[in-house]
Amino acid sequence: MVDPKSVLKHLDELRALTGDDNGAQRVAWTAVWLKSRKWFEEKLNELKEQHAPALKDYYDAAGNHWVTLPGEEETALVLGSHLDSVPNGGWLDGCLGVICGLEVMTALAKRFNGKPPCTVKLVDWADEEGARFGRSLFGSAAFAGNHTIDMDRVRTDRDGISLETALSCCGLDIDKIHEATAEQKGLGAYLELHIEQGPILEDLGKPLGVVQGTKGVERWQITFIGQEAHSGSTPMAVRRDALAACAKLALEIRPIAAKHPQSVATMGSVKTFPGIVTAVVGRCEATLDMRDLDEDVLAEMLREAKVASERFAAEERCTVEWSKIWSIEPIPFHPELIQLCDDAVKETVGTSVHLPSGPLHDAAEVARVGIPTVMMFVQSLNGLSHNKLENSEREHIELSVDAMYRLSEKTMAWLLG
Amino acid sequence: MVDPKSVLKHLDELRALTGDDNGAQRVAWTAVWLKSRKWFEEKLNELKEQHAPALKDYYDAAGNHWVTLPGEEETALVLGSHLDSVPNGGWLDGCLGVICGLEVMTALAKRFNGKPPCTVKLVDWADEEGARFGRSLFGSAAFAGNHTIDMDRVRTDRDGISLETALSCCGLDIDKIHEATAEQKGLGAYLELHIEQGPILEDLGKPLGVVQGTKGVERWQITFIGQEAHSGSTPMAVRRDALAACAKLALEIRPIAAKHPQSVATMGSVKTFPGIVTAVVGRCEATLDMRDLDEDVLAEMLREAKVASERFAAEERCTVEWSKIWSIEPIPFHPELIQLCDDAVKETVGTSVHLPSGPLHDAAEVARVGIPTVMMFVQSLNGLSHNKLENSEREHIELSVDAMYRLSEKTMAWLLG
Repeated sequence: MVDPKSVLKHLDELRALTGDDNGAQRVAWTAVWLKSRKWFEEKLNELKEQHAPALKDYYDAAGNHWVTLPGEEETALVLGSHLDSVPNGGWLDGCLGVICGLEVMTALAKRFNGKPPCTVKLVDWADEEGARFGRSLFGSAAFAGNHTIDMDRVRTDRDGISLETALSCCGLDIDKIHEATAEQKGLGAYLELHIEQGPILEDLGKPLGVVQGTKGVERWQITFIGQEAHSGSTPMAVRRDALAACAKLALEIRPIAAKHPQSVATMGSVKTFPGIVTAVVGRCEATLDMRDLDEDVLAEMLREAKVASERFAAEERCTVEWSKIWSIEPIPFHPELIQLCDDAVKETVGTSVHLPSGPLHDAAEVARVGIPTVMMFVQSLNGLSHNKLENSEREHIELSVDAMYRLSEKTMAWLLG
Repeated sequence: MVDPKSVLKHLDELRALTGDDNGAQRVAWTAVWLKSRKWFEEKLNELKEQHAPALKDYYDAAGNHWVTLPGEEETALVLGSHLDSVPNGGWLDGCLGVICGLEVMTALAKRFNGKPPCTVKLVDWADEEGARFGRSLFGSAAFAGNHTIDMDRVRTDRDGISLETALSCCGLDIDKIHEATAEQKGLGAYLELHIEQGPILEDLGKPLGVVQGTKGVERWQITFIGQEAHSGSTPMAVRRDALAACAKLALEIRPIAAKHPQSVATMGSVKTFPGIVTAVVGRCEATLDMRDLDEDVLAEMLREAKVASERFAAEERCTVEWSKIWSIEPIPFHPELIQLCDDAVKETVGTSVHLPSGPLHDAAEVARVGIPTVMMFVQSLNGLSHNKLENSEREHIELSVDAMYRLSEKTMAWLLG
């Protein structure tokens, strides 16, 4: 049977090896990340020697690490997540899913004497976070055929080192990352365990949750243009204050989001120009990030925010421009796998809840190419993530491993049936 | 009699000599500024040779340029302003008052055959703008005994050159700038002509205005602290959004200022942290600049803004801290000189209006030490200043020279009476 304590042991080991006083430092394409992958290879060697002589592993054209335990049938059940972290990150974000996958694979290898009824794969996606070069979901997007090679070519880190150079140091050729789509072949289902990174499960008192899908995201830059003016000599009545228009929008996005139970809208950055204490703001640049699981809801929120911004600009005698940063459609997970996940969670902890994921995950890229996919969330404490304070109850982590094993069994049966 | 066209001729000459396609470049303690002072010395030499053999000039311990035309009485009428400009500045800000002063002095020298009934002085204050080292009113503050030598010692420009070095290159010793207070001796009245730098006179259709004094200024940094959180995983209801609290304050300062006819309140800078599209703002830093001519009104505005900020912080479950950047009390000008200025303006253009100055001026430092002071404003076009688009009607500039000459005559009579 599956051994949840082994997962905790491995998590602690990886934390000691690749973290410091400020948290996890497994930033993709750095030495610490490579060290974590080396450590993981050692764990795979142990599994191969002890329980799975047929185990194979390799890195694909985008740096994703694939582990294959061949089964009676070629069609593959895949478990995965990512070992990379943000700088000063948490001890669970990403690596929990990979390490749990290793334990599930180990348990299946033991149970089926090294050859399960269907092939089982484990994937450690490359650079989920995009922390160094600003391109999140790097590896899984390449796998899904959504690579951005032309944009990737000009990406640099804050020291001016190009992504192309960093890839090359890890043995990858930027021009070939699209070849990672070859890995899609034969995959029957994809399961990912992740911490929630939000407060919903904790608020509901649920250790585990079933993820309905990842929310669609509309991400825009909004620029209000007014008139820079002297803060001392310009009467209030004649000002064209770009900050005032932006402040109204910062507040208005909240009632717009509040119309829908799962919508979020965030103004994360505001920049003022000239941005000095003695001048009325002539130009104000803000970012807006809106998310919902329902495409129509998301489109309506965006429309309402645009209309509101134009009204506020007019009220302040400013103009407003919207420029898209990025967007992605909502990606619902597979309904039958959602049901299997619900069953597994209920059998493990007696109760279940369905929730969408606000953050994106590699699972979204997998689901986009039509591979049946579902995610399970384990409760986060205080909703914190991307931070050394990120944490989950150790007991909940153990429960999540049990539940993922149950889900894997059920999914195998579903694949073969 | 006074020759207003000579003032325009000199303004055009200085503009050609010290401006470029981007505007005036007479930043204090730079070669272009020194060139403008050299040019002004040549004009003084012409005056001395032609009409005022007793004329003397020298630079005081803070770099202020004093020109003295000795009169029958030692008590001095002083005209002044500053030749320095901001980078890419306008053609009138500062130098209009100095060049007009030269013309008034010339006219008085001619009329009184080189020896007027009282002494007449002209001062070109050093570094009014503070554009390079961030210390405005440098020379006039030193004159008034309000120097800030200890803080000045650590000031550097954006290239890392210290103010101390820059002063030294201009022949000044930073440790001696306080000696400029010696220049206060014997000064009977101070008159300054300046462009308004705001839209009030233009809106009222008045070429000239009488300045009641400079508004008091309260300048604060306000920091709202909430909780950084993931924009995708954090439900709206549990957020502690520091930007939302700040946005409420950005809007609330306007009704607070609107209670008083001449008050202004400006949020000129907002900075968001971490300031990324995918995070709820955990910390928001803003600046607030509030001004009024009435000390009690200013204190009440500050109190109301603080109370409002605490209410908004509480509403958003944030905290707020206020940290003073700088403040100055309102400085009213001399009531009798205000009356004389009103008379002079009415005699020149038939109509007058009184208004406070929002921006500070060297005149404020002079008034602070008890020397009777008044300023006259000439209408600005479109309220623009600190910008190459700064402009005034040439006809209005001519009228201002006439009015300043009348005001000088009246003030001399007042000094002697």
